[in-house]
Amino acid sequence: MNEMFENRNTVEISELGEFGLIDHLTQGIQYRQTSTILGVGDDAALISSANSEIVKAVSTDQMIENVHFNMMYTPLKHLGYKAAVINFSDICAMNAVPQQLLVSIGLSSRFTLDAIEELYAGIRLACDNYNVDLVGGDTSSSRIGLIITGTAIGEAPKDKVVRRSGAKPGDLICVTGDLGGAYFGLQLLEREKSIFMENPEMQPDLSGHDYIVGRQLKPEARLDIIKAFDKMGIIPSSMIDISDGLASELMHLSKASNVGMTVYEKKLPIDQDTFNMGVEFNIDATTAAMNGGEDYELLFTVQQSDYNKIENDKDITVIGYVTDLSQGNKLITNGEQTVELKAQGWKAF
Amino acid sequence: MNEMFENRNTVEISELGEFGLIDHLTQGIQYRQTSTILGVGDDAALISSANSEIVKAVSTDQMIENVHFNMMYTPLKHLGYKAAVINFSDICAMNAVPQQLLVSIGLSSRFTLDAIEELYAGIRLACDNYNVDLVGGDTSSSRIGLIITGTAIGEAPKDKVVRRSGAKPGDLICVTGDLGGAYFGLQLLEREKSIFMENPEMQPDLSGHDYIVGRQLKPEARLDIIKAFDKMGIIPSSMIDISDGLASELMHLSKASNVGMTVYEKKLPIDQDTFNMGVEFNIDATTAAMNGGEDYELLFTVQQSDYNKIENDKDITVIGYVTDLSQGNKLITNGEQTVELKAQGWKAF
Repeated sequence: MNEMFENRNTVEISELGEFGLIDHLTQGIQYRQTSTILGVGDDAALISSANSEIVKAVSTDQMIENVHFNMMYTPLKHLGYKAAVINFSDICAMNAVPQQLLVSIGLSSRFTLDAIEELYAGIRLACDNYNVDLVGGDTSSSRIGLIITGTAIGEAPKDKVVRRSGAKPGDLICVTGDLGGAYFGLQLLEREKSIFMENPEMQPDLSGHDYIVGRQLKPEARLDIIKAFDKMGIIPSSMIDISDGLASELMHLSKASNVGMTVYEKKLPIDQDTFNMGVEFNIDATTAAMNGGEDYELLFTVQQSDYNKIENDKDITVIGYVTDLSQGNKLITNGEQTVELKAQGWKAF
Repeated sequence: MNEMFENRNTVEISELGEFGLIDHLTQGIQYRQTSTILGVGDDAALISSANSEIVKAVSTDQMIENVHFNMMYTPLKHLGYKAAVINFSDICAMNAVPQQLLVSIGLSSRFTLDAIEELYAGIRLACDNYNVDLVGGDTSSSRIGLIITGTAIGEAPKDKVVRRSGAKPGDLICVTGDLGGAYFGLQLLEREKSIFMENPEMQPDLSGHDYIVGRQLKPEARLDIIKAFDKMGIIPSSMIDISDGLASELMHLSKASNVGMTVYEKKLPIDQDTFNMGVEFNIDATTAAMNGGEDYELLFTVQQSDYNKIENDKDITVIGYVTDLSQGNKLITNGEQTVELKAQGWKAF
């Protein structure tokens, strides 16, 4: 009846990758509504209302069981919290403040009411912590596992909203917090899961690794930084949140702003525990920072003249500078080697 | 590691039902943002912007494979179209005009690029037909089947937005279009699927049933009615879209408005093909209209003084009237019997 699954051509989705696929599917899109200020291609869409200087930022993000999380080591309360926070993070990446959240959940009959309550407790805790209103959603049965899709809505004054596209040569490249922790948190959880699967008598040993496990299971959105920008009088020239890894996000800013990006390995903010886990897992902490993802820190650029405003902020690290497009995107290693950045992106297919 | 799945109490989700579950999970929610005008409990949330008389309506709805659709008889282009339209329908139910759409898709490696293009072609066709901008979304791999979650955003002047809660005793109860067709379209597709499964040589026979099959596979949102209201100078006192069946939606209006609802079987608008299929399947067409769902028509109430404005509109049928709460919700059958309405709702668990 439905012949869609006949393989009519040989182009594989994996050849396009996630971002290539989205570009492909949305090519030629034209916007007709005057309220549409910004469409596909940033952390959130931007929507205006007549006569208001306020812009709404809207973003949606889904979490699918066995792709984005494993129920074996993910407490449902943490999962609910994370599903909310990753959407808040997208709103923050526009220099906007999240205000509302809608959540759609697909869940199967193996869930007890207690379990769903835990999931919702996490969502509601995140809303409490970020002063966001849970205003809607949808609950369905799912025969195919747990799916949580969040949509966050936030707002910013029109003249303060920040896109991916405003970086200029000479601007400073900055990140908040530290990078790579969420990746090693995941590695640690996966290792302990394997040990547990082989020998259920063994209890998982996560002791001493609260920080990186927390980075993976219960990330935070940097709303504090958005508020700090406002106090400091800074409007970044471009911004994105770090969900897929620094390399991938740098390339997004580069592409959207039509500039090059040069960053220094020695400048990358890496927590001591992250560094130690790198040694233990024999995975370079720099690789984790560049390609690990899920840190939900902010990557942004500011004019050099703003340097004095950020230099004493312990949550902000300058990691490089913006160049002409012709310079490409590169990492200068501790050994002074120049490595061209490649997006690892999305290889789930 | 995760003990969430231990059955710590005996309350089953099925005892609560979909709406009871949502009520339970969202009880005690307080709204903190001044921009939140209306939260959980209507077809869409309502969000304001400072200094603007325009209100944004935001709604999200998910479609999950093998729960909401079966890939065997659902062309992907139709599926994409429907995923968009059911979200537009929620916006229309607030008397608002849909303007933006975000779509999150989870898909597995069995999808070819052609298949995804078909899905997107349907989404984009719906956006073209309704003059809506596709402004964002998210594409993930899914090991567990196809999931499409749409979020639609629309707008209306503050004084024209319609909630579920405004119906008053004496108001007329109206529906658009006709009811029950989508249900029989589904029955027909399921029957032909069964025949095909038993004997793949047999080709499905849907001839002569374009209308009801179309009602199931490619529903439309009644944006035309929202525009007609504006021209006629009508603001319904309450409104909801018919996604779960007339009985369920009447009970939503009743609960939100604190009134009773009396409707007449003989007034229910039922298409000839729907009626015939009822005979063929030995399922009462009235039952399909009351409990079938997925018609995506609008159910609304208007003041009696507006009757002259709608009486000649062939797309609008008056099916009953609003009473005091004490009268309950009832269907007066063709045999003059009074049947108390019960929500069939959601029994998927």
